[in-house]
Amino acid sequence: MSTTALTNRAYRLRSRPVGAPAEGDLELVSEPVPEVADGQILVRTLYLSLDPTNRLWMSDMRQYSPPVELGEVMRGIGIGQVVESRREGFEPGALVSGYTQWQEYCVAGPEAGFFPLPDPLQAPATAYLGALGHTGLTAYVGVEMAEVREGDTVVVSAASGAVGSIAGQIAKDQGAYVVGIAGGPENCRHVVEDLGFDAWVDRTAADWREQLVAATPKGVDVDFENVGGEVMDQVLMRLNFRARIILCGMISQYDAAGSDWQGQVHIGQILMQRATMRGFIITDHADRFLDAMTYLGEMYGRGKLRYEETIVQGFEQAPGALRRLFTGEKTGKLLVHVADPS
Amino acid sequence: MSTTALTNRAYRLRSRPVGAPAEGDLELVSEPVPEVADGQILVRTLYLSLDPTNRLWMSDMRQYSPPVELGEVMRGIGIGQVVESRREGFEPGALVSGYTQWQEYCVAGPEAGFFPLPDPLQAPATAYLGALGHTGLTAYVGVEMAEVREGDTVVVSAASGAVGSIAGQIAKDQGAYVVGIAGGPENCRHVVEDLGFDAWVDRTAADWREQLVAATPKGVDVDFENVGGEVMDQVLMRLNFRARIILCGMISQYDAAGSDWQGQVHIGQILMQRATMRGFIITDHADRFLDAMTYLGEMYGRGKLRYEETIVQGFEQAPGALRRLFTGEKTGKLLVHVADPS
Repeated sequence: MSTTALTNRAYRLRSRPVGAPAEGDLELVSEPVPEVADGQILVRTLYLSLDPTNRLWMSDMRQYSPPVELGEVMRGIGIGQVVESRREGFEPGALVSGYTQWQEYCVAGPEAGFFPLPDPLQAPATAYLGALGHTGLTAYVGVEMAEVREGDTVVVSAASGAVGSIAGQIAKDQGAYVVGIAGGPENCRHVVEDLGFDAWVDRTAADWREQLVAATPKGVDVDFENVGGEVMDQVLMRLNFRARIILCGMISQYDAAGSDWQGQVHIGQILMQRATMRGFIITDHADRFLDAMTYLGEMYGRGKLRYEETIVQGFEQAPGALRRLFTGEKTGKLLVHVADPS
Repeated sequence: MSTTALTNRAYRLRSRPVGAPAEGDLELVSEPVPEVADGQILVRTLYLSLDPTNRLWMSDMRQYSPPVELGEVMRGIGIGQVVESRREGFEPGALVSGYTQWQEYCVAGPEAGFFPLPDPLQAPATAYLGALGHTGLTAYVGVEMAEVREGDTVVVSAASGAVGSIAGQIAKDQGAYVVGIAGGPENCRHVVEDLGFDAWVDRTAADWREQLVAATPKGVDVDFENVGGEVMDQVLMRLNFRARIILCGMISQYDAAGSDWQGQVHIGQILMQRATMRGFIITDHADRFLDAMTYLGEMYGRGKLRYEETIVQGFEQAPGALRRLFTGEKTGKLLVHVADPS
């Protein structure tokens, strides 16, 4: 296949969102696909992973990696198929995962972090963007950092979300009493009945504070925090002696404007209970990926790792679908289906 | 000496303060000194240590040890002299440190945690309530938990206070670049010129935020936090990758009423910078006391451990002097002189 025959469609960042991303912040442009240089591969995007961090990268707040510059192609992780290869270990036709960015075709070298998926696949390809991909790794490393012990009460926020749903199942697999905080009765039912959590708290209910107290009769040993803000604040009031708070995400805050974006919480109980709060970003923990993948694969094999995904059809839907991360209009991992493998 | 001839004066907690402690929250009562039972000692209080935690104990907020009950003698640490002893290792005339409580005479067994001071003293007796006592131990353990490395930028709040002034000197002794946040030009001058800190930030100045930025050109690796609230919030915005925040105290918050007492801070940078925040209370770290005492004694011997103290004269002044901890009207360790040794 000659790459010169191919046209790429890509989303370029035109303006930084204020609050929720709006029409026009991302512009869909058609561009020729560049030549594949030595050491590079041409990848056709099949699925795009939508994650809270996408929203973060669109802003210029102080964050863990440089923001996407205005005019750049929107940053994102995806699964693709190698179309052309000038790099060893990447055969045409192979399925890969990495930074495809928000585009239909990606030409990139090692900087894009592509790695081949197992052949044959041990799970559906989309699982490698979810339970067996970066969200699963995030959940595993976070639970590991929390030093979860048998009998601990572990609270997971955004429990029906991509990371939360896996984190709760891992903690449960390790003997913890797991409480999921989720939005709405259906998501709460899901985390307990489908995923095996011990209890739920519906953050959309008027009495969610009372629900939290009732669901944590022995207090809270671990807070696996994906949300931040008011809900987190209440969880901190339930901390036990030497509790661990793992800051994995703060999705309630990413849409906030200006200097308030990070949310505020009361930290007095961290002192009083001699607790530890640790922030982490999965990319710092590459040394744990092999163990994590082995554990998650084994859990999946035992039928103990359940996941759901919401697949939005069509590349054109990607910008609009982002908001579902914040409104909760999805279950589990949110993906955009861009193309089918050849 | 017959104890039956002695009258004790003690402060009993009558009401829990709302905001700053008020007249009548503590009542000075005269009571007979009880008989000394087997295993107990009778101690005459010489100096009383005034610490932010005294204020905390007067409230019934969720805290690290039970609050003082209404009607109980106010809890406090002091230095005293043994008057009568029915306990091995405590000779009459010996100087001791422990929970004298807020009273002129204390009859207590091992539960009060008394230990004899070195004989002869290696420093003035009052130092054993400060730089060589529990405040010095607190500073040492906190710096140790922060894993201070040579060249780190360490910010110490309440830098002219009892714990902060020692913590900064220890960090400096270990090769860090130390920035002290203090209230007013004189306290700022003190921490740099007398204590050897590298830079200061005057939290009472209109431009304290700009001062903080200017004083931390390389960001902040360690926040040794004694204050909490707005000042801490700004320090968090300066955190470097893998920064450590040691929560030693939150004095700005102890006087606050109701559920707001713990203050709120933005924790987004803890996630973004993969920082760690740890709360600690010195009483959990008894296993470090011997090393700490050795280190502090050696520093003092080298002339590298400087401390100041503000001694308020007279037991009657104790309740009124408490507020100085919160207004900053004192330098270094705050003590009340109750009596002289015989």
